[in-house]
Amino acid sequence: MPIPAKAWTAFDADSPLKPWSFERRDPGPDDVLIEIKYCGVCHSDLHFAKNDLGGTVYPLTPGHEIVGVVTQVGEGVTRFKPGDRVGVGCLVGADLDCPECAAGEEQFCPNAIGTYGAKDKDGTRTQGGYSNRITVHQHFVLNIPDALEFDVAAPLLCAGITTWSPLRTWRVGKGSKVGVVGLGGLGHMAVKLAAALGCEVTVISTSPGKREDALALGAHDFVVSTDSAQMKAAESRFDLIIDSVAVFHEPNPLLRTLARDGTLVLLGLIPEPLPVKVFSMLGKRRRLAASPIGGIRETQEMLDFCAEHGVRPEIEVIRIDQINEAYERMVRSDVRYRFVIDMASI
Amino acid sequence: MPIPAKAWTAFDADSPLKPWSFERRDPGPDDVLIEIKYCGVCHSDLHFAKNDLGGTVYPLTPGHEIVGVVTQVGEGVTRFKPGDRVGVGCLVGADLDCPECAAGEEQFCPNAIGTYGAKDKDGTRTQGGYSNRITVHQHFVLNIPDALEFDVAAPLLCAGITTWSPLRTWRVGKGSKVGVVGLGGLGHMAVKLAAALGCEVTVISTSPGKREDALALGAHDFVVSTDSAQMKAAESRFDLIIDSVAVFHEPNPLLRTLARDGTLVLLGLIPEPLPVKVFSMLGKRRRLAASPIGGIRETQEMLDFCAEHGVRPEIEVIRIDQINEAYERMVRSDVRYRFVIDMASI
Repeated sequence: MPIPAKAWTAFDADSPLKPWSFERRDPGPDDVLIEIKYCGVCHSDLHFAKNDLGGTVYPLTPGHEIVGVVTQVGEGVTRFKPGDRVGVGCLVGADLDCPECAAGEEQFCPNAIGTYGAKDKDGTRTQGGYSNRITVHQHFVLNIPDALEFDVAAPLLCAGITTWSPLRTWRVGKGSKVGVVGLGGLGHMAVKLAAALGCEVTVISTSPGKREDALALGAHDFVVSTDSAQMKAAESRFDLIIDSVAVFHEPNPLLRTLARDGTLVLLGLIPEPLPVKVFSMLGKRRRLAASPIGGIRETQEMLDFCAEHGVRPEIEVIRIDQINEAYERMVRSDVRYRFVIDMASI
Repeated sequence: MPIPAKAWTAFDADSPLKPWSFERRDPGPDDVLIEIKYCGVCHSDLHFAKNDLGGTVYPLTPGHEIVGVVTQVGEGVTRFKPGDRVGVGCLVGADLDCPECAAGEEQFCPNAIGTYGAKDKDGTRTQGGYSNRITVHQHFVLNIPDALEFDVAAPLLCAGITTWSPLRTWRVGKGSKVGVVGLGGLGHMAVKLAAALGCEVTVISTSPGKREDALALGAHDFVVSTDSAQMKAAESRFDLIIDSVAVFHEPNPLLRTLARDGTLVLLGLIPEPLPVKVFSMLGKRRRLAASPIGGIRETQEMLDFCAEHGVRPEIEVIRIDQINEAYERMVRSDVRYRFVIDMASI
């Protein structure tokens, strides 16, 4: 029997989110039913609610930084039991037996199912975590270590894994020189995670005023990207740059700050083509890449790492009825650094 | 006492190359004097002679695919003796003690000196291999294995190493799926080298007529890049693409043929910025890179590999007085696949 649920939901591109009553599926053999405690607010939530990338089907309930408590499990579920502290990120489904899934890279599965706005296996549309409960296949449910409070754990499920994955893919560690472009929800996590991995972290920003914040978050240096002398001094410095800026910006000045064989990794969903010059890369065999979230195994690894190393996102907890105001503030970059909805307020 | 030398040389951007008499330096303690037997003709030679990239200082003698015989060595030279079969590629100088040189990557040394058109340590301009002799520091002199004939060895010094280096840097081998874009001097070497390494090689070309040639060179498959059905079928296929095309072309259709974590490596000196879309890379964490030649150690490795595996460039031997006609034919892509000048004709 379907399970009644509440949510705050977008019904069209132009109106604010509004309360909605709907149903979650009754847990199947492999499903976990979760009482949602907190849900982080990601910039992608806004893009989907407003149909900025096209293709949004309404009603759409955003939210893919979900933490809560297990209340019910299907008979095939062995890894979870009622009362467990768990999380759900950007994925709720995938083939599980394709080469990408077998490699632990479910995010690249051709049939990966997003936590909201995607077509589910039963033909319904997935609805995200701005809601009081959710039913999820056990493969996509993460353990939240006891050392991580629920509210700060939430942003790790997207902002955390999205920055952790490239740090691990490009194998930086003690002494690596890592640049971080943009100091928002993703960027501030990149600084904290890279610093915790032992990297020498430099924030690269258009805003000189962010220097103090950058250093407080754990950065060792700060470069103002609009200051050509500072950028010239940073030439050929970085092994890896994590670029979290989701609006168009020139890639060539950043490419030139990469050391030999260094990589500039773009995380932002920038719609415009980037004018990349061969001569910005050739002289040091530099590389440009783009990286989405990470796989489930890697997400668990990141949660465990954060618990062990005391890495915590900086958050501002809001009530669900503040979500529309939070979107407005997010557009103005008026948040340090992630809104998290307390679902007790729904 | 300086050593008299002959060359064919550009005296301005608009006139054909003409004979020139000049002097090579007397070998210093670390120098090797080489009697040049053959010199390959690279597209870069033409770019420099015509000042296509700006900055050419005349007179300019092109040529950086040099093979010949040692005739004299300085007193500090231990690795070479008169009579040795040797080669010189794109580099004749570098720091030798900087981090890049220490890593065997002299091509990235900030003070690397090109074989022609560069300022030498003594303040003179370097003059290349369209000449009967050359004096070169022993570090930049390669052994030509006995199994490699002089004429076919010449193109290995630039076209060979420029395609070998990315194949090694990105560690392809048996079973790797490698795409090669463009079937000219560089591209035909990429096909031969990748096939000899055990890769499954696909030529990607705008010209359906090149299929037979591609297969004859060792490719296993052929994709017509202007045929959208063929490109769609090749989606997410390649681990590495070696793109040797030096004129502007769209990068996004090629990026989409890369498998997860695959890399598109640009070898061509394309002056225009390339409009790279994040969405062409994000879904499979694809990468774009540019790669120049290779280091000295890697060049020797490539020469030895070619000798051992019977890899030979396809060449057309010309006389030095045919060089201007060869340039015209090269612009029309009317060469299969590399002109090599027989220096006995100078």
